[in-house]
Formats: sequence, structure tokens, C-alpha cells
Amino acid sequence: MNVIVRGRAHHFRTVTFDRAQNAVRLIEQRLLPHEFKIVGAKDFRETAAAIADMVVRGAGAIGATAAYGLAQGALAFRGRDLKTFSRHIETVYQTLADARPTAVDPVNAMNDVRRKMARGVTVAEQQSLALAAAEEFASEDVRHCAAIGKHGAKLIRNGMNILTHCNAGWLAFVDIGTATAPLYAAQAQGKKFHVFCDETRPRSQGATLTAWELAQQKIPHHIIADNAAGHLMQRGEIDLVIVGSDRVLGRTGEVANKIGTYTKAVLAARHQIPFYVAIPLSTIDWNLKCGFDIPIEERHEGEILGAWGTDSRGRRKFVRVANPSSHARNPGFDVTPPDLITGIIAPAGIFKPKELWKQRRKLGFQN
Amino acid sequence: MNVIVRGRAHHFRTVTFDRAQNAVRLIEQRLLPHEFKIVGAKDFRETAAAIADMVVRGAGAIGATAAYGLAQGALAFRGRDLKTFSRHIETVYQTLADARPTAVDPVNAMNDVRRKMARGVTVAEQQSLALAAAEEFASEDVRHCAAIGKHGAKLIRNGMNILTHCNAGWLAFVDIGTATAPLYAAQAQGKKFHVFCDETRPRSQGATLTAWELAQQKIPHHIIADNAAGHLMQRGEIDLVIVGSDRVLGRTGEVANKIGTYTKAVLAARHQIPFYVAIPLSTIDWNLKCGFDIPIEERHEGEILGAWGTDSRGRRKFVRVANPSSHARNPGFDVTPPDLITGIIAPAGIFKPKELWKQRRKLGFQN
Repeated sequence: MNVIVRGRAHHFRTVTFDRAQNAVRLIEQRLLPHEFKIVGAKDFRETAAAIADMVVRGAGAIGATAAYGLAQGALAFRGRDLKTFSRHIETVYQTLADARPTAVDPVNAMNDVRRKMARGVTVAEQQSLALAAAEEFASEDVRHCAAIGKHGAKLIRNGMNILTHCNAGWLAFVDIGTATAPLYAAQAQGKKFHVFCDETRPRSQGATLTAWELAQQKIPHHIIADNAAGHLMQRGEIDLVIVGSDRVLGRTGEVANKIGTYTKAVLAARHQIPFYVAIPLSTIDWNLKCGFDIPIEERHEGEILGAWGTDSRGRRKFVRVANPSSHARNPGFDVTPPDLITGIIAPAGIFKPKELWKQRRKLGFQN
Repeated sequence: MNVIVRGRAHHFRTVTFDRAQNAVRLIEQRLLPHEFKIVGAKDFRETAAAIADMVVRGAGAIGATAAYGLAQGALAFRGRDLKTFSRHIETVYQTLADARPTAVDPVNAMNDVRRKMARGVTVAEQQSLALAAAEEFASEDVRHCAAIGKHGAKLIRNGMNILTHCNAGWLAFVDIGTATAPLYAAQAQGKKFHVFCDETRPRSQGATLTAWELAQQKIPHHIIADNAAGHLMQRGEIDLVIVGSDRVLGRTGEVANKIGTYTKAVLAARHQIPFYVAIPLSTIDWNLKCGFDIPIEERHEGEILGAWGTDSRGRRKFVRVANPSSHARNPGFDVTPPDLITGIIAPAGIFKPKELWKQRRKLGFQN
């Protein structure tokens, strides 16, 4: 999407690959919205660290980053022995897969790259196919997000107030985004609406990233505390909820997403407000049979005990908010059951969460 | 309650009156837990400002502060003319009542003081009765909180995980607190349990004040993001919820409390987890007939757009977290309907929210 840098609009993708340097280039999202900076991860371990440390975050974006990271690891290999190469690829794969355990996009993206690599007969061929597959994954992510926008825009009517949680915007994908794609598409169609961005503690992706994206696109919006949506729903001030996901179980329709999503789904159901989840194909896990088996990442307590921001002189600072002698629990995700979800907005159309498995061919599932 | 200051335990009340200086003395709660400091409001306007600016906050604490503020305003009056005095008292009353519109304790406390003052025949008598009534209100608040603790402790069993939202601890009252009173009483009975403190954005009273209180009392606890309780309930990690209130409608059983309380009540109901509201008599509004008519204070957007804490050198700092060009909505309270509330823990016992009116004599309502 276009970003205003020094007064001019530039087009950026969240994740790109620099063939000459064998580096994965990423927008440093931890500095946004206070600073816009592109960083490079020079080997697969740095790429995995960038995912784990949330330089890059968001389902599709870490999917593409992992795909590029696998290609990067493949390209860094020196030698012609396929067995040694395969062992090396296994290490690269595991390192990248372990970076964010709740998300399924990195695993799906890397499985795709591995499958396509396997067609190569030599190490050199496999290296070349790996990069081509990673580039294809990234391009497909963009096409998928555009298709989500087209389907989702039909849900948006003039005058609506739309709630979103966390950031499933273009920063969370290679471009366009999922939960935001219907907003951008509806805006392009001339529709007028307003967005409430859940702050999304502890890392405040709603207040920082989603609000920044919407401001860049000139979409009217207000940030609210994660505590406020229930009250606004009760007073009739929210008409539609759209969120993203880090893993949707294709067999059950359960949705893992940023902590707090389940709460919003429970509230929306109570108030009969439509609740949609927007995802590309790579976010669907076709294997797991139970939402309780999705590993829920427990992140560092420091995220809960304080906040990052900029001080009055514009310097980036962490402040400790909580009582110094207290500790915190910090589950990063939760799981929403299908009965609370009005529909899944996928590249192939809008589906009921429980019909994903039955419609898997239409959705694009190949196996 | 006892506070460790410079290694020694001292007994403090949240609000006291200094007769010699005609000043209301308050614990400066905005500095907690990073600094413990007592400040004085030297006239009724400073006292009202201390309520509005949240130097002192919490239902009973601002009730007592307003009662003392009214006495303070009365005592500052010079002259003998009762009519002029009455007009002056009306100004003092309105100034203090306007400081926090959602709360009913200040109004109930001041009505109590005014009723008792009216028995005086001269200005001097009324001044003296005003202070006596304010002192009586503060003492009654302490007795009420102790009684709440006695009733509420029966709900707590060994091994329980208890969720609380915001701070309805001793800092929110003159002493002991309401939502925390059962915890302190159960601890005194030797029961072992664990508390989850909702962070309570935007002002983080859970992470700062409740966690600080529990740490002082050595009650095991963890702070969680406001987003996390739904997930923890889903996984069976929360057994009981106890919160306070800023206004309970005696005729309907509706409960106004810190923004986010309604959300927790909806979640608790879904998971069949008991949800209790602990209140002294002064929190009951016997007049209003509809929760929608409770004025919901809309606070400054700056509270949402950033956070207060201490930096690495221990200096108090505000950091801007949100996107600089975005704005926020900041409703401070929400209203929970009676069907989501298991019981109201009052000084006279535990009541169903819908039976408050029928049981008003037993509850202590005098009119």
C-alpha cells in the first residue's frame, strides 16, 4: 500500500526478498507509527528472530517471511550433496516454524515451498525452485487479499461502524491485508463508514498499526480501549466486526487469533452483531481436529507490565506501568468456536465456519 | 490497611480530615505504586479537583472525600446568615457532585451530610454537624467494608482462582475495600487462593493499585491483559469474579462500574462462573429507574492514546503509544444488567440484584 514518507506517497510491500544480498527485507513494525524503516535479515536465523521478536507479525506476512527464509536458507547452502542439503533444509524449516507456534501460515507456506523444491533434481535446481515458490506464495497472498476485499466489501453499507481487533491489515500480510481488505475495497467503491480500532493490549497493534494504516488511507476511525467494545455494542454503536486469524481449523471452523478476539465474538453474539473472520488459504489448518490442541503462545510478562511509546521528545521508551513486585500471565492468542462466527471471508468467497471442510475443493485445498 | 513505608508497616486510611488546617488529606493514587505520598486539598474546590483528576478514585473513597469536602466548604464559611450559608453550601455541593458524574457515592454521602446539618439552628451548629456527619460517613464506610468481607469470604474456597477488574480495594474506599474485602477476610481465615488482576486500561488501576494492594498483603496474584480473561475462563482457569461498582440501581439491579466490567459479566455468564458485585450502602441509587439513564463519563482521549509509568531511571513518564494522527473514544464506565450478576455482596448480606428494592429495609435504606 502507499505510505507517505517525507511528504510523498511510496508503494511498499510488508515483506520482499533481495536476491543480490540473499536478504529478507521487512518493514520494522515495532517502530511504527513513530518511525518508518526497512530492515534486512541477512540469514535464516535472523529471519526467524525477526518473526519471533515481531519485527514482522501478522498471519500472511510471517507466512511470506518464512517462505522467503526457507529459500534464503536454501540459497545460502554451499555444496552439491542432496542429503546434506536436505538435512540443512530441515534445520532451517524447524528454526522458522518454532518462531511463532500458534500461527499456521509459516508452516503452510514452507510446506508449499518444500513441495515445489522437491521437483528439482540438483541442489542448484532446488535452490532456484525454492525462491520461485516463495515469490509465488507472496504474490498469491496479495491476490488472495484482493479477493477477500472484493467479497468483504459487500458486507459494508454506508454509515456503518465497524470494529476490528489487532492488526490484520496490509502490514500483517504482504499487501492489502485481510480484515482491512473489505474496508479498502469499500472505500474505493465510494462507501462512507467509520472504524473502531481495539487498542489490543499488550502490544497495541490496533492503536499503532491499524490506526496508522487507516490514517494513511484517510478512513475515519477512533481507537478504543479493549474494555470499551461491550459498552459500545450495548448502545448500538457497532454494526459489524471483522478480524483476521492466525489459524483456522478447516475441520471444525475454530479460529485462533490475537488474545481478546474470543471476547469480542462472545459480545457480538450477545448483541446479534455480525462477526466475520477474513483469511487467505494459507491460514487454514486442514489437519488439527480440536481447537484445544492449538498451541497458545505464552509471551514475556514484560509486555503486560508496561508499555512502549514515544516520550515528549519523540524518543522511543518503555515505561513500567504495573506494581514493581507483581508478575503477569500473557497468553498471546485465544480460540473462538464456530457458533460465534457469522462467516469466514476467504479468497474464494464467504463461508460458514462449519462448512469449510465440505467446501475444501472450492476453497482451493489441493490434497 | 498497613503499608510498608521505608521498611516499616504503617496504618493508613485512604481519606482523612485535618481539622486544624481544614484540609482533606488523600493518598495521591496517581503516583502509586511507584511512590507513596499523602497530599492535602486546602479548600472544597481543590477537593473537587482531586476527585475529577483522580488523585482519589473509587466509590467509597470519593464518597468520603465529597462528604469531607462539603464539611470543609461549610467550615470555611465566615458569617452567621443561614440563607447566605445555604447558598454557599449549594455551590460546594454542586462543585463536588459534578466532579465524577457516573458515581453516586458522593451524592449519597453529601445528601447524608446535608440532612444531618439541617438539624443545626445556627451556622456554627450546622458547620459542626457537617464535620460530624462526614466523619460518621467515613467510619460507616469502614464498617460496611468489613461486613462485606465477612459475607464475601464464604464464597472463597481453597485453591480458587478469582478475577477482579479495576480497583475496588481499600484505596477505593476509606479502608478495607469492597471487591477485595472478601479476599482479605478469607486470607485472615487461612484460606489459600490466587487472584487475576485485570490490567484495566486505560488507567491501569488493576495493574497498579490492586496488584500493589495484593502485594502488600502477600496475596498470590498475576496481572493479565483485559483481553485475556475470556481465554482463561474457556480453559477453566477462573472460578469466581468479584468487582466493585460506582452505582447500583436499587430499583432494577443494574450495575455501573469501570469500563470492561460488562464484558467480564457476559463472559462469566457464558462460562457459568459466579459473578459478584461488592458494594456499601452508599453505592445504591434508589431513585433512577433505568440503567441507560446513568450518565456515562466520557474521559479525555489522552488516556487511551498512551500510558503513564516509570522509565528505567524511575522517573514518571507519559509515553504516546498510538498513531499520532489518530483520535480515541474513552467511555469510563459501562452498565451490567442484573441477569448477568450472581449476587450483590452488601454490608447486610448477599442479595440477588433484582431483590434489592424488596429488601431495601434490610439493606438499610431509610426513606
